[in-house]
Formats: sequence, C-alpha cells, structure tokens
Amino acid sequence: MCGIIGIYGNPEAARMAALGMFAEQHRGQESCGLAVSDGKVIHLYKSMGLVKEVFTDEVLKTLPGYIAVGHVRYPTKGAATKFNTQPHLVETLFGPSYALASNGDLVNYDQIRARLEAENVYFNSDNDGELLVKYLAWQIIAKNKDVVEAIRCLMKDIKGAYSCVFCTRKELYMFRDPLSIRPMIWGKNINGDVVVASESCVLDILDVNGRSEVPAAGIIEVNADGVKVIGNNPAQYRQQNHHSYCVFEHIYFSRPDSYHFGENVFEVREDIGRKLAEQDKGLEADCVVPVPDSANFMAVGYSAASGIPLSLGLIRNHYIGRTFIKPEQTIRDESVRQKFNVLPNFFKGKKVVLVDDSIVRGTTIRKIVRMIKLAGAEEIHLRIGSPAICYSCYYGIDTPHREELAANRYSLEEIKERIGVNSLKYLDMNSLRECLKEPDEYCYACFDGKYPLEKE
Amino acid sequence: MCGIIGIYGNPEAARMAALGMFAEQHRGQESCGLAVSDGKVIHLYKSMGLVKEVFTDEVLKTLPGYIAVGHVRYPTKGAATKFNTQPHLVETLFGPSYALASNGDLVNYDQIRARLEAENVYFNSDNDGELLVKYLAWQIIAKNKDVVEAIRCLMKDIKGAYSCVFCTRKELYMFRDPLSIRPMIWGKNINGDVVVASESCVLDILDVNGRSEVPAAGIIEVNADGVKVIGNNPAQYRQQNHHSYCVFEHIYFSRPDSYHFGENVFEVREDIGRKLAEQDKGLEADCVVPVPDSANFMAVGYSAASGIPLSLGLIRNHYIGRTFIKPEQTIRDESVRQKFNVLPNFFKGKKVVLVDDSIVRGTTIRKIVRMIKLAGAEEIHLRIGSPAICYSCYYGIDTPHREELAANRYSLEEIKERIGVNSLKYLDMNSLRECLKEPDEYCYACFDGKYPLEKE
Amino acid sequence: MCGIIGIYGNPEAARMAALGMFAEQHRGQESCGLAVSDGKVIHLYKSMGLVKEVFTDEVLKTLPGYIAVGHVRYPTKGAATKFNTQPHLVETLFGPSYALASNGDLVNYDQIRARLEAENVYFNSDNDGELLVKYLAWQIIAKNKDVVEAIRCLMKDIKGAYSCVFCTRKELYMFRDPLSIRPMIWGKNINGDVVVASESCVLDILDVNGRSEVPAAGIIEVNADGVKVIGNNPAQYRQQNHHSYCVFEHIYFSRPDSYHFGENVFEVREDIGRKLAEQDKGLEADCVVPVPDSANFMAVGYSAASGIPLSLGLIRNHYIGRTFIKPEQTIRDESVRQKFNVLPNFFKGKKVVLVDDSIVRGTTIRKIVRMIKLAGAEEIHLRIGSPAICYSCYYGIDTPHREELAANRYSLEEIKERIGVNSLKYLDMNSLRECLKEPDEYCYACFDGKYPLEKE
Amino acid sequence: MCGIIGIYGNPEAARMAALGMFAEQHRGQESCGLAVSDGKVIHLYKSMGLVKEVFTDEVLKTLPGYIAVGHVRYPTKGAATKFNTQPHLVETLFGPSYALASNGDLVNYDQIRARLEAENVYFNSDNDGELLVKYLAWQIIAKNKDVVEAIRCLMKDIKGAYSCVFCTRKELYMFRDPLSIRPMIWGKNINGDVVVASESCVLDILDVNGRSEVPAAGIIEVNADGVKVIGNNPAQYRQQNHHSYCVFEHIYFSRPDSYHFGENVFEVREDIGRKLAEQDKGLEADCVVPVPDSANFMAVGYSAASGIPLSLGLIRNHYIGRTFIKPEQTIRDESVRQKFNVLPNFFKGKKVVLVDDSIVRGTTIRKIVRMIKLAGAEEIHLRIGSPAICYSCYYGIDTPHREELAANRYSLEEIKERIGVNSLKYLDMNSLRECLKEPDEYCYACFDGKYPLEKE
Repeated sequence: MCGIIGIYGNPEAARMAALGMFAEQHRGQESCGLAVSDGKVIHLYKSMGLVKEVFTDEVLKTLPGYIAVGHVRYPTKGAATKFNTQPHLVETLFGPSYALASNGDLVNYDQIRARLEAENVYFNSDNDGELLVKYLAWQIIAKNKDVVEAIRCLMKDIKGAYSCVFCTRKELYMFRDPLSIRPMIWGKNINGDVVVASESCVLDILDVNGRSEVPAAGIIEVNADGVKVIGNNPAQYRQQNHHSYCVFEHIYFSRPDSYHFGENVFEVREDIGRKLAEQDKGLEADCVVPVPDSANFMAVGYSAASGIPLSLGLIRNHYIGRTFIKPEQTIRDESVRQKFNVLPNFFKGKKVVLVDDSIVRGTTIRKIVRMIKLAGAEEIHLRIGSPAICYSCYYGIDTPHREELAANRYSLEEIKERIGVNSLKYLDMNSLRECLKEPDEYCYACFDGKYPLEKE
Repeated sequence: MCGIIGIYGNPEAARMAALGMFAEQHRGQESCGLAVSDGKVIHLYKSMGLVKEVFTDEVLKTLPGYIAVGHVRYPTKGAATKFNTQPHLVETLFGPSYALASNGDLVNYDQIRARLEAENVYFNSDNDGELLVKYLAWQIIAKNKDVVEAIRCLMKDIKGAYSCVFCTRKELYMFRDPLSIRPMIWGKNINGDVVVASESCVLDILDVNGRSEVPAAGIIEVNADGVKVIGNNPAQYRQQNHHSYCVFEHIYFSRPDSYHFGENVFEVREDIGRKLAEQDKGLEADCVVPVPDSANFMAVGYSAASGIPLSLGLIRNHYIGRTFIKPEQTIRDESVRQKFNVLPNFFKGKKVVLVDDSIVRGTTIRKIVRMIKLAGAEEIHLRIGSPAICYSCYYGIDTPHREELAANRYSLEEIKERIGVNSLKYLDMNSLRECLKEPDEYCYACFDGKYPLEKE
Repeated sequence: MCGIIGIYGNPEAARMAALGMFAEQHRGQESCGLAVSDGKVIHLYKSMGLVKEVFTDEVLKTLPGYIAVGHVRYPTKGAATKFNTQPHLVETLFGPSYALASNGDLVNYDQIRARLEAENVYFNSDNDGELLVKYLAWQIIAKNKDVVEAIRCLMKDIKGAYSCVFCTRKELYMFRDPLSIRPMIWGKNINGDVVVASESCVLDILDVNGRSEVPAAGIIEVNADGVKVIGNNPAQYRQQNHHSYCVFEHIYFSRPDSYHFGENVFEVREDIGRKLAEQDKGLEADCVVPVPDSANFMAVGYSAASGIPLSLGLIRNHYIGRTFIKPEQTIRDESVRQKFNVLPNFFKGKKVVLVDDSIVRGTTIRKIVRMIKLAGAEEIHLRIGSPAICYSCYYGIDTPHREELAANRYSLEEIKERIGVNSLKYLDMNSLRECLKEPDEYCYACFDGKYPLEKE
Repeated sequence: MCGIIGIYGNPEAARMAALGMFAEQHRGQESCGLAVSDGKVIHLYKSMGLVKEVFTDEVLKTLPGYIAVGHVRYPTKGAATKFNTQPHLVETLFGPSYALASNGDLVNYDQIRARLEAENVYFNSDNDGELLVKYLAWQIIAKNKDVVEAIRCLMKDIKGAYSCVFCTRKELYMFRDPLSIRPMIWGKNINGDVVVASESCVLDILDVNGRSEVPAAGIIEVNADGVKVIGNNPAQYRQQNHHSYCVFEHIYFSRPDSYHFGENVFEVREDIGRKLAEQDKGLEADCVVPVPDSANFMAVGYSAASGIPLSLGLIRNHYIGRTFIKPEQTIRDESVRQKFNVLPNFFKGKKVVLVDDSIVRGTTIRKIVRMIKLAGAEEIHLRIGSPAICYSCYYGIDTPHREELAANRYSLEEIKERIGVNSLKYLDMNSLRECLKEPDEYCYACFDGKYPLEKE
C-alpha cells in the first residue's frame, strides 16, 4: 500500500506533487519522497514523516524543476527506514540520472535481484522500487537499450504488481503491470501539465479534467514533444484475458471520493451496504452505526436499504497517526479509545447494526464492541462489507501471514463469540461481485486464494 | 480556545496527561506543554506542535511525577510562540514551585499586569496564563497568603473567563471563573487518580467514571489528604444570578462525544438540525449534506426531521493540520480542495441542502459552494446552525474584529449572493434557546452583543 | 581549575567577556557560560565546548546588557555536564535575579548544602558555584540581608577557596576568600569599564591599564555610582596572618604572560629553571629540551644558567583538545604521539636534559621519554620544576587521590627506573621558595601537606 | 594548502586516517573528509570543522573498511563549503566506485572542465579534486581505460600541482605531478599497512618506519597483490629537467618535525636564522624574539649564530581557530591580541630582534610591532626569513592578488615605516638557496616570478 505521483510540465512541479501526495496521504503515512528534475539534474529529498511535515516550503525550494516523481509509503515492519523510502535514484558519471516510484509488490524480486547482483549492480535497500529502477538503468547503461525497450524487457522479466512513474532528466514515463493490479490514473490540467497518481482524488486537487486509466502493460512517454501513449498488447506478458484489479481498493484503501477501474468507490461501498441489508431481511434494530471512516458509506447504503436510521455513534480521533502513546502498567489498555469513542448515553438500551469493512486479525473490532457494550448497547449485530479474508496478498497489501488471519484460526461462530456480538455476517462473494460492473476483471485472491500470479 | 488537563495521583501522570491532551487536541493544535511534579520539583516541557509529536516516549521519561498540569494551545496570530505556550512555571529560590494552565481570556489583563509590574513581578510572555500564575505566586510569596486565599483574591481582582489547573510541588488545585464561561469537568478513575479536563471525552479515554462540573467560583484542592471541594458563593464575585456558559462549545468547538453544562453536544447539534428543518417546511431537495465534521450531527437532525436523505457528499482530508501547502502563481487557489473534496458525479443535477455550523468571514463556505456548483449541483440551500455572528468574543474564542464579520458587512441577501447559494437561512435565536435545557445559563454575546463582562 | 570574568559598564559586555574568557581558555576547556544583565533581566547561556565554539555571534546577540559574569570550566570526571557549568542563576517571582561564577573549591560544601536544604533551598547541580549563589540569595531573600552583609555572612560560614563574581540586575560584586587561594585581578579600561578576571592576560586583551589584586576577604561593589572597594580585615575570618596563594599557578596553570600575587609567571619559571641548573653543576649535556608548553620558560632559565643550548626538540600539536582519537587493537598506543612528536634526527646520539613542570601520575612523561629514546637519545636527564607532589589539593586543583600520586607509590629511584631516565631530580622546596618574592604568602600543601584549611 | 592521506590494509583504516589527518591539521582547518572502502562499497563522510570535531567515534563507526582516502582543507574565500570539501566520490550503477583527494592547484582547470562537460560529465562543485576524479572515471567508464592508463592520460592533459590519493573499491593509487610541486611521502608500518600523506609527521604518528617520496610523475598501485611502484619518466610530461618543490613548505607551511624533499624542515629554518644573523653582523640587541610558532626555529638559528639570547617574549594563544570574536564599535581593534600577547614587563627598554617567516600584506606584523612598542621596547629590528613576496602562487598557496602584496605596493623603506620598526631586512635569494641542499629543484616563483607552469 503506497501512493505514487508524477508531474510533467509545471515549473513548480515539486509543489504540485506535494499537494497531490497530501491528497493520497492515507495510502502511506510512514515516509515520503520526491525526485525533481530541472532538465539537467534530478534532485531528491525523502524522509520519514507525513507530507505536510516533510515537504515544508524550505525543502520545496531545494527541489526546482518541471518533472517530479513522488511517493508516500505505508508502514511495514522492519523496513520502515529512510533507505527503503522511494523514489530511488540512480547516479552515474553524468549526474543523478534516473528516478522511479512504484506501487505494488513483485513476486520474483529475489530472482531478479540475484541476476542483477551477478552483473555487479549495486543495491542499498531491500525495496521493490530500487529493483525496478536499477533494472531499467542496467538495461539502458549496460545493455544500451532505449527507455521504452528497457520497460518492455522489464515487463517480460519482472512479475508482480507495479504501477510506476519513472523519469530521466528530460522525460517522464508511466507504466503499469499487464494485470493492472494497483490503480493508476493520469490526465492533463488546463495548463497542459501532465499528472499521474494512484487515485483520482489527487487529480481533483490538481484541477485535472480529462482522466484515463494507464492501460494494462501500457507505457506513456511525456517529453518536450508531448505525450505519447505506447500501447502494448498485455496478452504477450500474461496468461489470462482479463485484468486483476485489486478489489480491496474499493472495500478499504481508497478515499471514497476517488474512482478506480471505472467505478466510484463510494457507490461500490453503498452497494455493499445495500447487499448486506438484503442479507438481513427482518432484522430489527434501532440504528446502523459504521466503524468510521472506511465503513461510513456501507452504513449509508445499509440504512437506505433497510430503513434503519443511520447514526454516527462512534467518533474517530483524526489526530491519531503513526504512533500511539502507549500507557504502561498503571493504566489498562485503552489504545482503542485513542482512536474511537462513543457518543455519551447514545448506545444505552439500543439494538445496533455495526458495520465494518473487513476482519483481518479481529483485535480492533473486538475492543470496539466491548466499548459499545460498556456504553449499554442491548444487542450488537456486526456486518462486514467483504467476504472472510483467508489468504495473504502478494501484490502490495500488508496482510499478515495466513495463520494470523481470524478466518483461518476460528469458525464463524467462534469469531462471533470472541468479538462478543449477537450476530455476525460477512458479505458473500456473489454479492460482492454484484456490486461491481465488471466483476471478472478483479482479483479476489485474499478471499478465494485464486492468485493471478504465484509467488516465485 | 484551548484545552487544559490536570492529573493527581498516578505515578505516570505525564503519560496520562498526554493521553488526555491527545483527546482534546482539537481545542488547540499549535503548541502544547506539560508541568509535572514528583513532590520535590516541577519539571516542565513545552513545544510547538501536536501532542503526539511533542510528547514522545523520550520526552515523557524526562517528566517523572504524580501531579501533572497540561495545556494544548490554539493558533492565534503573532503570539504562536513557545514563550506564550502554557503551562507557565514560577521558579523561586526554593525551586520550580508553581505551574498553571488556563482556558479562557481575561478582560482586565492590562490593569492587573500593570499592577503586578509595579510590584516588580517579572513577565516573559503576553499570555493570560502567566498573569494568573504570577498573580497567585505574588499573593503567596509577597503577601503570605495560602493558596486558597490567593485564589479567592484572584476571583475578586481578575475578570474574565478562566478554567484553571494550578499545582504546587505537592498539591493540585482546580478553579473556575464565577460565570463558568469555559467548560471544566473532573472525576476520579478506578484507581482514585483525579483527572480534570476541558471536555468529558478526555475523561472517557482515561477511564474516569464519576464526573462533575467544577462549580462556578469553585476551588477544588487535591493532595495527600484527598479531594476537598471548596464551594464559593459565586454571587460574591459577579452581578448576575446565572452562569454564562459558552454556547459555541455546543455549536462548534467541542467533540460531539463530549457533554458540557449538563447536555450532550451531539444532541444539541441534532436538535439544531431539527430546528433548521422546521424552519424549512416545504423545501424540496435531493439530499442533506453537512460540511464535515462540525455540522455532521446538524445534518443528521435535519435529515431525520425533514425526511430528505443524508449524504456525506463532502469528504474531508484529515491530514490537514496547521500548515497548508501554498501553491504560487502557477496553480489557481485550491486551498479549500486541500481540506474538502466532493464525491465523484454525486452532485450532478441535485438539489442540495448544505448545512454548516456558522458563518464568520464567509470565505471558506464560498469556496465550498463554488466547488459543489462546479460538480453540477442544480440548487444549493445553505442552512447555518447558529444565528448570525455580529460581535467579537472577549472570553477566549478567536473571532475576528467586528468589521470583518460577514454579518456586519453585508445584508442577508448580499451574503447569499456572495456565497452564491439559492437560499440562505440562519438558525434564529429562539430556536437555538429551545435546543438547550437551561437556555438562561448561556452566553450568546457573539450573536446578541449582551456581554456578561465588559472589556476593561 | 577554572577561569572567571566580570564586566561592568560596556554596552557590549557579553562580547568583551567572551573575548576575555577566550584568553583564559586554558583554565577550563570543558564548558563555559555567560550571564548578562541589561538592568532588567539577567540572560544566561552556557554550553559544553570552547568559548569560540559556544559564543558565536548569534549567541552573543541573545545576551544584551552591560553587566557580564562569565566562567570557563575545567574537565573533571563525572561532573562535566551542562548542569554543573557556571554561572548559576537564581530566578524569583521578580525574574532572573542573581548570577555568580567562582573559581576554587569549598571544604565545607556538604555542611552548608545540608543547612540550606533544611531551609528548602533548591539545588539542581553539585557545583560549588551554585552553593555560593544560593547561599547569597537565601541571605538576601529569606533573611533580608543586603548584598554586602550577605557576602560577609558567606565569608564567616563558607570555608575554602573562592574567587567570585556575582551580579544582581544592576550591580556587579567581586569578592575573594580570606586566604586568597585562587588568583583574581581587576581594573578599568580607558572607557571606565570595570573588568575582573582570573589572570592578568585577560586584562591585556581587554586593554585594561590600571590593575589591582582583589584584596583578601575584600568586596568590590560596582554600580551606577562607581566602584567601591569594601575592605574587610581578613583576620576576622581566618586563623593565620598570611595569604595562601596557590604556588601551582606559577608552576603550571597560568599563562606565562600573566602575573599573579605580584610576580610575573614567566620569571618565576625562568628562576625555577635556573635553580634546577644550580642543582646540576657539572652535568654535561648537548641540549636542554622542555616538555612544551608549560616547561618552556624553565628550560630557558636552565639553559641560561648552565650554558647548555636550549632546543625545542619536542613539538606539540595544538589541535589536541578534549578528545583523543583512541586507536583500538590494531595500532599500538600512540596517544602521546597525538600530542607530542620529536624533531627528525634531532635526538640521535644526544645527551638530553629534559625539563618538565611536575610529576603527578608519571604516565605521560614515561611515554615521552620512551619516544625520545626511540629517536636515538644517548642519555636523558629529567628535571622537574617543582618538589614531589605527595598530597591532594582541596582548593580547586584536579589532583588524583593520594594513592595514585607517583611520589606516594614509588621511591625516587623507582620512579627514575619506571620513567626510564638516566637521572631524575625534583626542585627542592627551599629552591622553590627562593624563586618567590614573598614565599610565606603561598600554599605548598600539595608538596608538604600543610593545609591552611582542613577538609570538613 | 591542504593535506592528504591514504591508507591501505588496516581493518581500522578510517581510524588510522583520522589520526593521521589530525597530525596534518595545520594544513587545513576549514573542513575535512574521509572515503573508506570495505572492498564492496566506498563510504564517504565530510563536514566543515576540525578532524577531532568531525571524526567522532560515532562517525568512524559508519566508515568500515581497509582502504581510506582522506583530506583536510584550508579555508579560502567563497568556496569554504561542504560541496567543495574533498574527497570526491563517483557513483555509478555499480555503487560508489571511485574516490580521490588531492593537494595542489591546476592551471588548466577551466579547459579540462569544459572538455568533460562537453562529454556530459556532471560536476557539483568547483573543486580541483572533483575534476581529477571525474577525469579518471570518465577515462575508465567512457573510454574503457584501466586505472594506470587513465592516470597517464591525466598527466598528459592536466597541468598543475597535484599530489593525489585515489581509490577504487579494491585498490589504492597514489600519483604526483611531474614537477612534484606539493609534498607527498609514503611508507609501510610494521603490519605492512601502506600509508601516504602530505607530511612525514603523519608517518611518525602512524608508526611508519621506511619512507619514500612518491617520485615525480610516479604512480603507486596498492592492492591485494602488494605494492607496485610504476615509474614514469617525468620528462615526457614536462619541459625541464628538474623538480619544482615548493620552497614555502620549508619556510612556513610544514610542521617543524616534518622533512620534505630530503631535508628536515627545522634545520632549513635554523639555517635561515643563521643566514639572517650573518647578514646582521654588528647589530647590538638584547634579545631575539620569534613570532611564534613558524619563526621559532629561525630565531633559534639567529640566536645561535649571533650570540644574542633567544627569548619567547611573544605568547601565542593556541585556542585561536577559524573564527575570531569580532568586537564592534566600543572596543578598539584587538584582534591581534586574541592571537598574541607579550610577556609582562619583558620588553621595557629592550633592543629586540624580531624574526618572522614572511611578509604577505604586512597587516599582522604591524599590529605585533605596535604591541611590542607599547610594551616599552626601545628598538625593534625586524628580520624576515624569506625574500620579498612579489608574485601570486598558482599551485595551491592562498596568496592574495599581486596588487595586495606589501612588496608590490611599497618600497622597502616604506614598509619599514608602515610597520614601524627601526630596521627591516629580508633574507636574500642567494642565502635562501644556500639553506637548501638541492636549490635547483625548488620553485621560487612567489619571490622571482619564474613560474614552472604558466596559468592557462
């Protein structure tokens, strides 16, 4: 889970990029970085922290140029360091020459890295993005390929999810894996500046009107001559006819004001809510309460379909960030209270339909349920806006090992008991597919284990 | 607008205080501070920044002790410095001896400061909190008063809004102005630790069960002997029989999961929404959309009363903080887009009831309206959950000078035109009073100019 | 071992003080500090590091005022912290009010501290200077004494060596222990600015012409009315008729361009060299070589008296500072080479008179001798410009515990063997006395154990 | 003026290098840097500041490896930045690959830089060292030369003074310009570690026994196979038969405990002093006083030859560093007093022979003379240990523009008057040559304008 951005053409490319990264901050809050070219040199700045903390006016002034490649990174264990932060830059005798930011995970990272190291290519991180940019630089420098050829070689050799923005000192390239696993959208603003990002809400803030998906296996080259969309037949790189869009972007990751793969996120979520309500015919309750913010629109949909009034009974503290203040012995575990609280007196005696987007380990929802019960709720009916998660993701979502997933450790009944609710229902797979316009174009591997690409 | 906290009894008082300050972070995001006594010395740490940024584990370790006094500060022009940050500490030959944090503004600051300076008392800030603690220290040191006597003198001499937490090396005191303008609530947790804060949601996170308002002109002394509530007759300090609770706490400031002055904030807001709907009988619209987050519950109430469906059509970016990334010449003003965005395709052709809590200068709502119109809304009917603001506040709310208030510059019709909506209605004063259980106990000066205390 | 400075009258007092502290930097290289009063507030800055590193232009700008009290501190184990750095400042309700810097150690520190702590006076360091300023502040604040009375009480109560500069917001005071153990000299420059310091070389750099010793038990008060020398009869505070000037100031501590207690340091050192030569009648050698820099003038005197040519055969690296770069296993111990080196080919086949000022533990001189022998010297005759050190100092010199002193662990013959020289001679006590104009006015306790004040 | 160091073979190469750089700190106090290879990666650290401040234990731990290339840099106007600090490192796709440190200035820098920039080679500083390493990397990477070939090309193309240490990830190279203008000496210690440095005193501290000059136009390659001295005939690169050793190394730059070009620095200086005395037959004076430290040995020689006693009448403050504390209006210019002071009462009524090494602008000696006169000297006879400096140096000495040199602005008589001495004599050129064993092998261009290489 990360967010990427690319800008071409604006003399304040760094500033535009920072603005855009801020709009996709929810995709990665651990660290962020920007590489900016002024046509002669690529300047780089990256740091742990949020966009608005890292990219101050002072820092932005050190990043002159009209081409920008940026990245926001999601916290993952062990590797949350500045070294692993993207973009990665390749320096040569001719100066800082190539930079790349990517979203998605590779499935044959180890194989490709070993191959490049055998050719003496140097790595200073364990990050996928570095592998991608070093691979391209090696094709360009050591194999004398041009950039488009180098990217085509990459698409043949490297397997996995990758939505990439790559720049040389004078050009910006965007390209995307043949399955289009992670989102990637681009367009031009009124000035003709080109913008590419992970979510459409970034294009909103940057006032970009015309927008398109970067096509599967497509390469888009942007330079002084304009924009050239280089279509590749994705079939030559993959073994199936359809895309493998990540369905979890709709369920959880993306902002509700974004659209992906031809669908509005908020509408998919409202539809999920409606489907959940349909599964619940006859349930009597006083209110539908979402776990904010990801389940808000699911609750809206549930309420609309069921007629049970929507209540914002859980309040989320938005100042929560990377770090929890961890109380020690003397105070009992209130970490969930740092993030959520209940309205005073609201739940007393109520029958509640509680809607959440998914269950991973099940620890947070258990604490939320306990809090609502302490607040006096009479019944809690938990509804989950996705099927049970039984498989890990290899393409960029930070799901735990299979054995840690609640759905693999316990039966539905056991989960219900552990969480402490009166009833528990997941969205079934068919209903989920009915919420999508092109259900065959999505990857559901975390639910059904049908991986479009195996881990090598 | 600020938030205060006091802790007595917990060996990790600093950690508890930080946890509580985090829950009232919305009351002040510019800077924060903590003074902690271990019975021998009062340690102090304050800094610009958010609680979770400032009070890291490393800093908390430097603040051992069982008595804590903390503060979060609201950004105001010119004075957003570390010097003006609370708590203020008085050092003497006998060590760091007294600390205080306060919420509220004084109306005779200049007079009292001149009087103390004439006595050679030293000031190194322009902050109300420093005046209060220096006044008390001067009564104690130079006039040989005990603490309770000193506070009583303060209540006679100093006019204004002040909800205060004061500590010596061994005792914690809470006290509040005779009109109880700003909120202040206290209680004990299961361990017997005493907690006092600006909002009840702080007591939730700290697991405090029994709660009470600090009484008007009341003094609460906490020390090794326990808690002593020293009731004062507030009448001896004021000229009216009732309180002057700040009504704006319900309308805008407080978290919806707090309650103040005997009322739940979210219920007052829902009632306001209902009243707005009652004023609108016959209005036809497709959806009710709140300006998030302060107007959310007003929109809930409006929707419930009118039957027009609630839609969360505006999305707020919660990563927005103190600083906006300011684009320069090349990008047109999109600062409102940094904070808000619209759902894609949502507004097209819709008749919208847009609910906001209040209008101060009217600049932000104007930009929001323009954004919704660009998104294709057919009609926008703006409803404001409070009467028109025509007067500045002297008691701690950062309202601009009277001449900058929209309601003083333009007629209702003009405001409607400038904002660009099809209709505009404020909540009328009677309706507002009907939303409150004890309407006579509130201050409405920002609406009607009836100040309970004149500026001296 | 420390250096003090006081300035009164110059609008750039901080700058003058820093200039002067730089000239007495050799008295303390660990940390330094300055307290500066502008008549209303005393500003303080202190830090680990050298004067020229700490007191940059930027820092000096934060120290406006016409009264300055400064200090350079010698590195001692365990206590080389910013907290223990002088000057110490007393804050009161009336602002930062009193500051003091002192040179010398007290012999009844523990007793006085206990007494003040019993009165609740607060300490945040273990430093003598803090005791002195807190004692004075306590007499002034709690006992209502005026400053001169307070200093007189101090002279009665506190025993030890103390050359002190003390300031209030409007006045500068200098005072000195009745035995005048540590040096202290003052004067006025051409503008009438008053300067007081530990060494006369400070008065040189600040262009001060008339100079005087601060008299034993004397108090000098400087304020808007001018300078008032308040003579005390030192007899009332001590049990002997004479001073106890530290003889080690002449032997080792002071810069050779300073004079103390009525004698030029370089002349005392030259006389010591002459006396050493007289003890050596008939010794044949090729050259006299000093261990630079403290023994330089002793070697000059030795050469003049003996006719053996002076050679600067040892070169000292003046970039050596607080920290040695410590090589680990792979390089043999060359720490002495970081500080000293020999001229190439110089020592080959030579008979050398090597002159050093004193032997404490004897470890450094042993390494120097080994280096000279490796360089090919045929004979080395070591001459020490002081008697054997057999006793620790209680008055401010950082000598080790008695058992670590070479002269207490080994016989003269053993020391000679361990150091590895052909002969070894100390200056005898009578000769040392003959080098001084007023030998009875000095303390020789480190040599003879006759302490003018016992440790309490 | 700079100092270089190279280490090969020691597992603590960085620590050894830092120790050595500390011994040649006098060659450059502004900034310093180290590049260290562990055989796989070259790590780099550079910073403004002194060696002991920059290379703390913490920093040294980040520089593992057995090959080190280091540099200390002299302060020059405008360019005293971290960017211009050496060593410079070339990064490639294969990692940080090449590093170089050099001493000396080039005379065709502009031409070579233009040529490389035309080949798109990237520069991020204006430093000679970067040109040299980029030139080599370009020959290696773009022209497929091996390192020795690349250095030979460099010797043909690049003109000027360059004593260089260059490393790849696995090898160390030393090489030197055909005229051997700047010093460069190497050897092996008892472990077989190879050390190369600017001065022999560095080899002393690192316990290196066998030492040799790097030959003119010579290349020394050090790697796992051992040391290979690759002799070049310097004649193929130059138009004259002899070297052009910098004579100023003996007069001023080098430490007195170093030897260069086959001569001991201190002996050359003593000889200069003797020659000055011979020029002065019959002069009556009370003492010979050096301006410390560079003229110390000249004064020793003068005293020995003339029989006039040597006196260390001027004391130098060794804590002076890069920055002077600059007094403003209120104190008169005492900057010279920050560096020098006189012994008290010493000069009164004396006839003084004052010896200094050279006169550049003449401003400092003028202030020193004024100080000695104020101290009461009756006569001052100034003797300069070198001929008049009339020409700028192009090979690495920071001499001012010709028009600023005292000898070009004033006649000898005028200089004498301006400085205020009773007599002034320079060493004549013939005498200087007589102090050197191989006078024809030296460059005297700063005295006689005969440049071995013209500025291009």
